[in-house]
Amino acid sequence: MEQTPKKSRQSIREKMHEIIFEADTFWGKLFDVVLLILILCSILVVMLESVADFAAQYGSLLKTLEWVFTILFTIEYIARVYSVRRPIHYIYSFFGIVDLLAILPTYIGLVMAGGHALTVIRALRLIRVFRIFKLGRYLGEGKILIMALKASRFKITVFLLTVISLSIILGTLMYLIEGSDSGFTSIPRSIYWSIVTLTTVGYGDIAPQTAFGQFIASLIMILGYGIIAVPTGIVSVELANAQHEISTQSCQNCGREGHDHDAEYCKYCGERL
Amino acid sequence: MEQTPKKSRQSIREKMHEIIFEADTFWGKLFDVVLLILILCSILVVMLESVADFAAQYGSLLKTLEWVFTILFTIEYIARVYSVRRPIHYIYSFFGIVDLLAILPTYIGLVMAGGHALTVIRALRLIRVFRIFKLGRYLGEGKILIMALKASRFKITVFLLTVISLSIILGTLMYLIEGSDSGFTSIPRSIYWSIVTLTTVGYGDIAPQTAFGQFIASLIMILGYGIIAVPTGIVSVELANAQHEISTQSCQNCGREGHDHDAEYCKYCGERL
Amino acid sequence: MEQTPKKSRQSIREKMHEIIFEADTFWGKLFDVVLLILILCSILVVMLESVADFAAQYGSLLKTLEWVFTILFTIEYIARVYSVRRPIHYIYSFFGIVDLLAILPTYIGLVMAGGHALTVIRALRLIRVFRIFKLGRYLGEGKILIMALKASRFKITVFLLTVISLSIILGTLMYLIEGSDSGFTSIPRSIYWSIVTLTTVGYGDIAPQTAFGQFIASLIMILGYGIIAVPTGIVSVELANAQHEISTQSCQNCGREGHDHDAEYCKYCGERL
Amino acid sequence: MEQTPKKSRQSIREKMHEIIFEADTFWGKLFDVVLLILILCSILVVMLESVADFAAQYGSLLKTLEWVFTILFTIEYIARVYSVRRPIHYIYSFFGIVDLLAILPTYIGLVMAGGHALTVIRALRLIRVFRIFKLGRYLGEGKILIMALKASRFKITVFLLTVISLSIILGTLMYLIEGSDSGFTSIPRSIYWSIVTLTTVGYGDIAPQTAFGQFIASLIMILGYGIIAVPTGIVSVELANAQHEISTQSCQNCGREGHDHDAEYCKYCGERL
Repeated sequence: MEQTPKKSRQSIREKMHEIIFEADTFWGKLFDVVLLILILCSILVVMLESVADFAAQYGSLLKTLEWVFTILFTIEYIARVYSVRRPIHYIYSFFGIVDLLAILPTYIGLVMAGGHALTVIRALRLIRVFRIFKLGRYLGEGKILIMALKASRFKITVFLLTVISLSIILGTLMYLIEGSDSGFTSIPRSIYWSIVTLTTVGYGDIAPQTAFGQFIASLIMILGYGIIAVPTGIVSVELANAQHEISTQSCQNCGREGHDHDAEYCKYCGERL
Repeated sequence: MEQTPKKSRQSIREKMHEIIFEADTFWGKLFDVVLLILILCSILVVMLESVADFAAQYGSLLKTLEWVFTILFTIEYIARVYSVRRPIHYIYSFFGIVDLLAILPTYIGLVMAGGHALTVIRALRLIRVFRIFKLGRYLGEGKILIMALKASRFKITVFLLTVISLSIILGTLMYLIEGSDSGFTSIPRSIYWSIVTLTTVGYGDIAPQTAFGQFIASLIMILGYGIIAVPTGIVSVELANAQHEISTQSCQNCGREGHDHDAEYCKYCGERL
Repeated sequence: MEQTPKKSRQSIREKMHEIIFEADTFWGKLFDVVLLILILCSILVVMLESVADFAAQYGSLLKTLEWVFTILFTIEYIARVYSVRRPIHYIYSFFGIVDLLAILPTYIGLVMAGGHALTVIRALRLIRVFRIFKLGRYLGEGKILIMALKASRFKITVFLLTVISLSIILGTLMYLIEGSDSGFTSIPRSIYWSIVTLTTVGYGDIAPQTAFGQFIASLIMILGYGIIAVPTGIVSVELANAQHEISTQSCQNCGREGHDHDAEYCKYCGERL
Repeated sequence: MEQTPKKSRQSIREKMHEIIFEADTFWGKLFDVVLLILILCSILVVMLESVADFAAQYGSLLKTLEWVFTILFTIEYIARVYSVRRPIHYIYSFFGIVDLLAILPTYIGLVMAGGHALTVIRALRLIRVFRIFKLGRYLGEGKILIMALKASRFKITVFLLTVISLSIILGTLMYLIEGSDSGFTSIPRSIYWSIVTLTTVGYGDIAPQTAFGQFIASLIMILGYGIIAVPTGIVSVELANAQHEISTQSCQNCGREGHDHDAEYCKYCGERL
């Protein structure tokens, strides 16, 4: 999203860039909203096509709609490549690749039989939904959330490593205890079970049958129950910090910080901020 | 809930309004409590009627009770319409519509065979239970909770959008990996599965069968485990803020509130607190 | 737990009271620990007796052990009634009734055939385990936890009422949508399902089958995912408050509070605390 | 991890100790990383061997790899015993025993048929993964997490005792209500069910069938939903405390740390900060 210089007379290319890549002007916002709706609709079409009953009844309609969306997205892709100053930069960017992958499958479907199934990749375009956070109030809030998650990334890594190590050790243990009769047919499957249990998901497709296995499983559940407290605590503390930091402004007289958003005077010395 | 002027001599209509719509007087409180008990009993009757064994044995008793409640609620509805100053205002309000919907199905049941089944709508009247929050201590506490939820609505929206986008992308991914043999028969169904997994509900009606599917599912579970930390952190921080704001003193000069515990000067006008 | 005056020469009765009801002396602590172990063993015996294989093999041993525990607990009960100053007061207290209920079933089993099954009531005696919190460090920590839960009881009530109302309304809704084919055979059963879902337990014994039902269920899950943040936030904030309050001490010079546990000097003016 | 004195000329033994036991030098770090990769690979081999299809196809390859890892780990074990100053100290340490247990099963497999199965013990070596926390930024973050968990250990114990007591009492209750027809065949099994429910795991292998059982189960779920808030609150508060304590300045006079953000005087000696 490069910043174009605000000239009084813009070329068509610059105008297009402003509309397609930015969201500051009216047309830029409109483009983003229309695009988002088109993406949502195209994903809906892909979804409905995967429902057997629906595909049988409205197959031709869905096929037509898919082509409409593909052509619209192709035009959008070409416009993006044309209007951007460094096309190579865009083409190899994450969004550039996603945009291309969203249109390719339909064309591949013409040549290859199975290729069409890949249309589901289009779901990835949904990530563009996060562009709306650029609008108004969401900007600040999203910033606080991202700041908090960034600040807690080391703690979260420590936590995840612990959870994964625990899952492997406990999964292996349950494989020894339960054996293949209860569905613990292999170690990877037992690890899958221990993750299902530690995260309190609990499908029940695999469940301990022996008394001892159920005893160990109970300990794992209580452990998982306690472990869930850790990331929550981490994020809470970091969120509080992030919010605090953003709202910090120091007094010109006494230099102290920690004032509220809406503070007009320093709460320590009474000086105007 | 309009405030009627406190005159020394009130008309019957005003008296009724005070009892039915307000909860300041003894009779007003009594009315609210009796109404709440009637609502709970009527919901219980509707519930029991849906239990096949019960309906077969005590069918006529339940039918009689249903008519008793319907007539009582009809009288209440007429009294509300009569006593309120602007009946149209009440009739089209949320509670007005709910109150009407709660009595209509029994009457419709006289004419139409199936109409009677709609009596379950009566459950919506349960929302009146929140009126008790108007009593005493709950007022302040409820206010803090609502303040905190209001303050975090932008962050919660960002969070929900992320969860829904993730569910769609991961659901589509699992549809490709697992296919219809494991129960992932369509993309919407796979998305339903990914929500069931991300929220750690885990019914187990659909569960991955292939090794790779179980591997991806494990990642989704650990992701969901981490994601749950975010709303909790948001609400914790906002609750702390809300409580903080409510629990503080007001400035003698400008009368504004919301100062910190350790503030010595008003942050709005600079006056010493 | 009445406080007996500390005389130089105590009667046997007072001595017994000190050992049985208090935990300040060596023998008092020993009595509590031995009693706790006996309770745990007696519960273990009751548990093992309920396992069919175990009861068949070691039936007579378990029966003997049960009689040993019953006689020991009977002696304890008589000693408690004898040593306490106001026996009626103890007999009708919560622990008095639990202690009696723990020994009665075995005696009833002599007369009546089924009466013996009630021995499981003995599990209630487990509540005595919380007496160990009277020892040392746990006292303060338990106090903070109880303070926090007490302070948040109004907010928790508001929260629980909301969850229960939501469960009833959503359960009724799902009864209408899914019907008895998917296992939603009655409204109470549907409400049970909605609680299972909202609390993210998710047994999977009842699960929506129709596409629309799964859509509504997805919304309920995401709702439940968000709702769980509220009690956590409440308890976090109240715990922080409770801990803060306990550690508060005001300065004699400037009168300010908010010092740490280990503070020896006022952090605002440097005065010795 | 003993600290060897930094001499200009080191014996081979000291050099080996530095590489194997420490992670300060380049070769020490390299050794740790290579060892970690070998451990992960050896665990992967053990896992794959437990998958029936895989073992049938690549049995001889896996067998060879297992011997390669065993011989490498044997060399590592001998090097550790040789290089450490007090071998007995290492051999009987936790890591010493784990390292030995990781290589023994393969050798035992030569003599005994079943002995080979114990190779899975190797998963325990995964604990060495936590050594990477000694590197850089993770050190401080891990310290905060451990400090917070240490500070909350008394509260967590109180909490766990409550959860376990509740599980036993509620499990026994459900055994009485539901009986063996619904899968509640014994008290231990019912307790297993109540832990599965309280922790919101919810396998669904055992689920209440009677209306009353489902009603009690609903109460247990709502209880479990509320209880989960407690450990989260505890960890959040302690994490905030731990971070607070670590992040502050030290007094110039007495050198002690742990002052508040807004402290102007040392709280230990009264010196101006």
